[in-house]
Amino acid sequence: MITKELVNHIYNTSYEDIPESVIEHAKKSLLNWLGVTIGAIRHETIDILLDVANDLSTSEQVSILGREVKTDLLSAVLINGTSSHIFDFDDTHLDTIHHPSGPVAPVIFALGEKHSFSTKELLRAFILGCEVELRISNAVYPSHYQHGYHITPSTGVFGAAVAAGLLLKLDEDQLAMAMGLAGTQSFGLREMFGTMTKPFHPGKAAQNGLMAALLVQKGFTSSTQVLEAKRGFFNVYSPEHNVNRVLEDYGRVWELEKNAFKPYACGIVLHPSIDACIQLSELATPREVDGIILKVNPYVLELTGKREPKTGLEGKFSIYHTGAIAFLEKDAAEEQYKDEKVLASEIISFRGKIKPIADEKVDKDKVEATLVKKDGTRHQVFIEHATGSIENPMTKDMLDRKFMKLCKSSLIDEKITQVIEAMDHFEQMDSVEEIIRILS
Amino acid sequence: MITKELVNHIYNTSYEDIPESVIEHAKKSLLNWLGVTIGAIRHETIDILLDVANDLSTSEQVSILGREVKTDLLSAVLINGTSSHIFDFDDTHLDTIHHPSGPVAPVIFALGEKHSFSTKELLRAFILGCEVELRISNAVYPSHYQHGYHITPSTGVFGAAVAAGLLLKLDEDQLAMAMGLAGTQSFGLREMFGTMTKPFHPGKAAQNGLMAALLVQKGFTSSTQVLEAKRGFFNVYSPEHNVNRVLEDYGRVWELEKNAFKPYACGIVLHPSIDACIQLSELATPREVDGIILKVNPYVLELTGKREPKTGLEGKFSIYHTGAIAFLEKDAAEEQYKDEKVLASEIISFRGKIKPIADEKVDKDKVEATLVKKDGTRHQVFIEHATGSIENPMTKDMLDRKFMKLCKSSLIDEKITQVIEAMDHFEQMDSVEEIIRILS
Repeated sequence: MITKELVNHIYNTSYEDIPESVIEHAKKSLLNWLGVTIGAIRHETIDILLDVANDLSTSEQVSILGREVKTDLLSAVLINGTSSHIFDFDDTHLDTIHHPSGPVAPVIFALGEKHSFSTKELLRAFILGCEVELRISNAVYPSHYQHGYHITPSTGVFGAAVAAGLLLKLDEDQLAMAMGLAGTQSFGLREMFGTMTKPFHPGKAAQNGLMAALLVQKGFTSSTQVLEAKRGFFNVYSPEHNVNRVLEDYGRVWELEKNAFKPYACGIVLHPSIDACIQLSELATPREVDGIILKVNPYVLELTGKREPKTGLEGKFSIYHTGAIAFLEKDAAEEQYKDEKVLASEIISFRGKIKPIADEKVDKDKVEATLVKKDGTRHQVFIEHATGSIENPMTKDMLDRKFMKLCKSSLIDEKITQVIEAMDHFEQMDSVEEIIRILS
Repeated sequence: MITKELVNHIYNTSYEDIPESVIEHAKKSLLNWLGVTIGAIRHETIDILLDVANDLSTSEQVSILGREVKTDLLSAVLINGTSSHIFDFDDTHLDTIHHPSGPVAPVIFALGEKHSFSTKELLRAFILGCEVELRISNAVYPSHYQHGYHITPSTGVFGAAVAAGLLLKLDEDQLAMAMGLAGTQSFGLREMFGTMTKPFHPGKAAQNGLMAALLVQKGFTSSTQVLEAKRGFFNVYSPEHNVNRVLEDYGRVWELEKNAFKPYACGIVLHPSIDACIQLSELATPREVDGIILKVNPYVLELTGKREPKTGLEGKFSIYHTGAIAFLEKDAAEEQYKDEKVLASEIISFRGKIKPIADEKVDKDKVEATLVKKDGTRHQVFIEHATGSIENPMTKDMLDRKFMKLCKSSLIDEKITQVIEAMDHFEQMDSVEEIIRILS
């Protein structure tokens, strides 16, 4: 009966039941999601999706965020949802490696634009949609992920369906059926990592979940016990699971509050080294540097040991390039992983000074960094918790700057500031119309 | 490398390489698919899907078969594919309980209508799409199905992608990527049986597969080793599998030739009893009958022992109702499972004369039937292979009559005859336009 119990809890959670701190974290999550979505919206992946949507002669119902174009509702959630995962720069529920906003936020923005729902309704739907997907992820992690499923779409589809269902005013039975119709469409293979199909996953999960809610609203029928049934989601997609996790501490612990944001546009294992190199850059000019020794866990080097990256994407898997740009440019945003950066002579020459050492004694999420100057002086930095970790989260100010950097190729500065201000007062706006207007 | 090897075999199989008998069986499959699709096209399930498509302001690209309405390409394959599975009256590859036409034929008709492909191109794409899904089904059956996946959509999505990809002239690498993008969207839980979500499955598989081919055609990237990869389809969706089945006897054995057609609109376990009752109906009038004893395997009674069905759907699970209508109306088509039939007094009274006896010694696919007349005479019939089995397949004439019955509520008789004639000469037509014209 866990499907119906979960639905019952969700259905009876009002906006007022949600603590202020959760609302604030949801607003940060939405700002971060909006930034990564707008940031990648001119990527080739999106051009292809739009091209196909145009061939289908889609109608102009909902905005592609950050581009002056609209598509039908279902194409828009697919496209916006895909864009948010292109840079691998979106949010992460670290307990389950699930990116919660990807499948849910596009539904919130698209339905919000189409039907002018109040922003409080949107926030409630977003938060509860995220709770649903993350609590299901808790129940199946880690075996489900280790088995080969990409957890973001495979459980995210439930979050998208519930978020849409709440907005569309489904009753409890219908919400359970929307979970059924969504859950039977659960999908996502980790084999797809490294191709455009990976970012397609959260977009498609958003689309499948929204479609489920739209159909059930009109009377479509489905199972009301998709999670627990003999041939339902848990038994089929994750024979090893713990159903008790689904409602554990419901209303006391909010999974969305465990959602972390990445300050840097690369794998999380490099983040301590980036923090260290930025700190060390305050202590010497590039010319003064003889070398920077980065003592890291062997696992870090295994993943990011590429000595001579040729493309921006390869740069994300190179501690040499990453250390160099962190020192030289004090950042590791998408900008620092453009192809031309990886091929720039001053960066290539500096990356020769980055000297990683594998050391079992250093934890995966830490680094011991030593700056050796040509004059022989040494400076040490030890990063215990990288920026963006749960213990050392990005501040609102950092998130604003991340948003600005992500949007600057798509929007003029004035509009960027306006969007940040609007998102700061999200719950006080009538609807998302103001944000959509600024973006278009 | 099995993904690429399969693609290589498919890619290099021309229309001329396909034996005449396979072409003929493909034409029967398409006629049967068209009949079950048109037959259910006014069902509430379809009304809901069309309603949502209309809300999306879909464009008028492709026909909903048997209704005077068009939608965009992707909505049309979803809707036509769903319609074909509503009556549970579509084709079955008995080795794997896979319904091969459901995910593939809607793609053939929709792309055929939109792009005027030649019917020979369409037949080749249909046959090879079916080979792909059925050969993958062979590799994962039975463990995949027993585990809880609905095999028709979960492997059908590959067939849809390959059929679309062949028509869209993808090259070999692109075809492999279309299989990747399709395979990551594999889905379908058996828990959904008994709800509208079950027929939704083949429609959605068709839509996901077609979408994959459309995107890859424009440059979308995906894995080219979706079947065999460590975190690919076989390992994730079916840890017990036999990869050798995929190309076993390729070009010598055509899986599509093992495709069977149902003469009756109910579960296959009742088909021998229906055959028997129809035969016995030649030997007595209803008034002369004292009883009809049906000696069947206990499994048959377990599934169909409903004594007092109240709805048409329940009638399909009642050997009493089914025996009665088979004797009284010499058929067990969708017509005989309408609610009013189940509630008709003369049928209710006759079903009291149907006397099933469970007997372990009778095989599941057989029946020993005895007609006992009021005058004391007895007539026996033994059905060894029911109509529609591999050993006793439906003849072309029977398929034509099935088609007529399915279409008569949607089309006038003249049009029905015209469609059958056109389908008889399918490979000699320029395109499917003529059929679409008759249907609209």
